[in-house]
Formats: sequence, structure tokens, C-alpha cells
Amino acid sequence: MAKKIKQIAIYGKGGIGKSTTTSNISAALSVAGYKVMQFGCDPKSDSTNTLRGGEYIPTVLDTLRDKQIVRAHDVIFEGFNGIYCVEAGGPAPGVGCAGRGIITSVSLLKQQKVFEELDLDYVIYDVLGDVVCGGFAVPVREGIAEHVFTVTSADFMALYAANNLFKGIHKYSTEGGALLGGVIANSINAPYAKEIVDDFVARTHTQVMEYVPRSVSVTQAELQGKTTIEADPNSKQAQIYKSLAQKIVDHTESKVPVPLETSELREWASNWGKQLVELEAGVLSPAAAGNL
Amino acid sequence: MAKKIKQIAIYGKGGIGKSTTTSNISAALSVAGYKVMQFGCDPKSDSTNTLRGGEYIPTVLDTLRDKQIVRAHDVIFEGFNGIYCVEAGGPAPGVGCAGRGIITSVSLLKQQKVFEELDLDYVIYDVLGDVVCGGFAVPVREGIAEHVFTVTSADFMALYAANNLFKGIHKYSTEGGALLGGVIANSINAPYAKEIVDDFVARTHTQVMEYVPRSVSVTQAELQGKTTIEADPNSKQAQIYKSLAQKIVDHTESKVPVPLETSELREWASNWGKQLVELEAGVLSPAAAGNL
Repeated sequence: MAKKIKQIAIYGKGGIGKSTTTSNISAALSVAGYKVMQFGCDPKSDSTNTLRGGEYIPTVLDTLRDKQIVRAHDVIFEGFNGIYCVEAGGPAPGVGCAGRGIITSVSLLKQQKVFEELDLDYVIYDVLGDVVCGGFAVPVREGIAEHVFTVTSADFMALYAANNLFKGIHKYSTEGGALLGGVIANSINAPYAKEIVDDFVARTHTQVMEYVPRSVSVTQAELQGKTTIEADPNSKQAQIYKSLAQKIVDHTESKVPVPLETSELREWASNWGKQLVELEAGVLSPAAAGNL
Repeated sequence: MAKKIKQIAIYGKGGIGKSTTTSNISAALSVAGYKVMQFGCDPKSDSTNTLRGGEYIPTVLDTLRDKQIVRAHDVIFEGFNGIYCVEAGGPAPGVGCAGRGIITSVSLLKQQKVFEELDLDYVIYDVLGDVVCGGFAVPVREGIAEHVFTVTSADFMALYAANNLFKGIHKYSTEGGALLGGVIANSINAPYAKEIVDDFVARTHTQVMEYVPRSVSVTQAELQGKTTIEADPNSKQAQIYKSLAQKIVDHTESKVPVPLETSELREWASNWGKQLVELEAGVLSPAAAGNL
């Protein structure tokens, strides 16, 4: 019997550290001995750069524009430690659906039975989560991924995007859609950032998979076109990514999240905003704020 | 003869200060005696908040979901100094096109000849520019707006979004699409930030309308649910917004920009990245970097 390929989608607002996190998870899984494909689903097409020495690879949509018949292997490139890298790409700006690249690319690889041929353990989709429209919801909606994780900071816009993702997952949960594994809390340094994300996951009935601090070692590695796992494998930051990857390996049961209504989310954010202003003004002591 | 209504679209990546800038332009135009409507085209639906004391208004799409027949005046709310506020809204997360709200809302108001009835001088569309897909390109593509401006910082992701917008404008420029007025450079404090944006506009054959510095007075005003024009009308920051608004009043001739190819843009950004690293490492003196 063929082994089961674990397919995972990682969503996040652009600029929040989604591709950094995804590439470090892929690298950690690969170093741990798993066969991994990372599938970039962001029209910016730079998901896999730090697995390839900072190099961009041709996207599936660009390749399809250039030639009539595309073999799956024309769009799969090997990166760090043998990780297979694919970039879906996007349509021409101003035209059509920006999520179209995702469904086209996945279909191409599935038709040619590439996942089985490459004997993959993991396919990790790195999906732009700013606008959770029908296009970008494809990996959730079409049952392409099995488990969804989202990268978020304590920033309101990132949490707003996460909550929209939860609404999408909730909507398709009765029709075979992907379910939610949990939240990867990124750029968590200040104590209040952890409190905000913890409060958000409690209210939406999900969990934090890992708290990832902001670290200059990540930036330094990326400037060399590398993940932290590759550039600085013994660093504390690399250990955090390895721990996160192991939790994803151990994760089996995803759930339906309970998204907040937009008005609830706004009120919740507004209350946190007021508390932070008071904290900055010295009205609340940090210790008291820590208990909020 | 009816006066000509000037219709303007302001695009920008989420989080870059697009709605802050747009609301301050609307407020400045209104204070200068013009009749203004601000039309939020971001599914987050918070474009007009600082014109309404921090309050959210019901969106056109939400109102259409609630009742069969919507009169235009059900979705128009008066804000600061009589500015008319509209929020297009967005579809349910995970479903359909996120830009759908724009075309639906504009059609509703146009059919009912609201712009003429209200005797408007300016309609300003505040459009999410992260994903320049067919949906969000509607104000450019359908000839809804006449002039397009984009808010950008010196951040690569913001410039990438601006360049994609330029590609969209270029594409539709021969079919009656809106043309580009220029770039509003936001959060420009460090000297290199100005250099980066100046270099970008020179290469793409456009112009900077105004350099807007980051200012704590803007944040303070927004925490009160106000624009800087309302909260702190005599501040230096308010003068900058008024100057920008006057330049938009005086602006008559928009042009077709010359977007960079994606590979050119990446190389350009990579060169700037290297220069900034050298600058930080002290290899280049700031004065020399200023001449880059």
C-alpha cells in the first residue's frame, strides 16, 4: 500500500514571515529525513528562495505561457538538502483571479502523479493569506491540503487575515474542506504579543503550535539566501523551527475553528488597543498587563 | 452644463498608510471647500473610520445581503465636515472574487445618479493594492477613475505592489483605462527611503506627488478616530496633507507608467538591499549612500 502523503497549507498575511516560517519547516523536516516538496502559492513567487540560495525559479504559470506542453519536472527544482521546490506563480497583473495559479499548478502535478513518483512524505503549500477570496481558498476548499496552519503576529491586520481564514475553513468544513491545525505565533518578543495571540486562539477555539521570536539570525540567513536551518543549524532559532516541525509531524487531528464575527473582532482589537495605550502611558504596570 | 466630477483611485498595499493618506486628502479637500465622497474598496471596510469618529459603517455588500432593494442613500453616511462615506465591503471569506464589492457598489450609485445629485467635486476610491488581480483592478479597468495614485513606502513589498499596479494601468491604457497621476511616498524619514522611492519613480517614468513623513501625531489622531486634518489642523503633518491635496486639485494630466519587468525589479531591489547592508556595516558613509 502506498504511504500517505501529508499535505499541509500554511497561510499568512504578506510580510508576516509566512515564507520564512514555511521554508524553515521544510528544511527542518528534510534534515529530519523526510522527503519534502514546498509549493509556493503567492503571486510574488518567492516562497522557495531561501531553499535555493536566494534564486527565483520559473513559475508554473510562466512556463505554461511559454510552451504548450509542460512536464511536471520542468517546474520542479531541487533546493537545500533535496527539497523539491515549485512556484505556482500568478496571472498578469490586473487580469483574472490571482489564485488561478494554485489550482492550475496542483492539477498539473496531480495528473502526472508526481507526488507518488517522488515518494514524498510532505507537500507544504505556502499560501498568501491577505485576501481570503475564492482563489486563495483553493487549498482549503478543494480538499488539496489536509491540515491548515496560519502564521500570525500580534498585529491586528495579521489576526484579521487569520480570522478570515478561519471563516473560510468553517464554511467548507462540512464539504470535505481542510481543517485547522493551529496558529504559528511569529515575531513574538514583547510579553503582550504572546498574551494577544493566546487570547485570540482561546476565543477562536484553536491552539498555538509554537511561539517564534523575531531574531536577527533569520535576517542574516535570508540575506545569504538561506534558511536558518541551513545557515545556523545549531542556533536557538533553528531549534525552535525544528521543534515546530516535529509538532507538525506529531499533529494528527485538525479541527473546525470558531471564527469571531467581524464586529466582535473589532471590539476585541479595540479593547486590546486601549490596554496597550494605557500600558505605554504607565497607567497599567506590565505585570498587571501580563494578566489581562 | 454639469460640472465635471474628478474621480480618483488611490491604491496601496495594506498596512502602508493608504487609508490614512486617503482620509487626510478627503478631509483637506473638504476643508478647502470641495464636495467629497470617499469610497472604501478594501474588504476590511475601514477606509472611512477616521472620518467618522472611529466608527464602522454598514457596507454596500452587507446591506445588499440584508435587503432586496437598496437605495443609494442607505449606504452613504456623512462624516467629518460633510464628507460622504461609502464602504463597498467584500464577499464572505473563501467565496468568489474579493473585488466584486467594488463593481457592485459603483454600479448601484451610478444607476441612481448619486454623484450628480450630491453635486460632488471629488470621488476618491481607496483601493487595496496587495493583489492587483482582475477584481481590484476594476477602478482602473472599467474607466471608473480618471487618475490613479499609489501610496508606497520604500519597502520592497510595497514597491512590488506599486509596480504590479503600473503593469495593470499599462495594460488597460489603450482601452480607456485610468492613467497614473503619481506616487505618494509615505513613511519617508530616513534619507535612503527618499532615494529608493526617487529611483523607483525615475525608472518607471512617473513622479512623486508628495513625501509624507511618519509622524506620531497621525497615530494619536487615529486613536481618537480622527484624521490629522481634523485633530491637529495646524500641525506640520496637516500642512503636508493639505499641500498634497492641492497638488491633486492642480493635477490634470495623468500618464502611462513604464513598469519594470519582474526580473529587473528583483535585481534593482537586490542592489539596493546590498547597499543598505553596506551602509549599516559602515562600509559606505551616509553621504556617499545619499548619492547612490
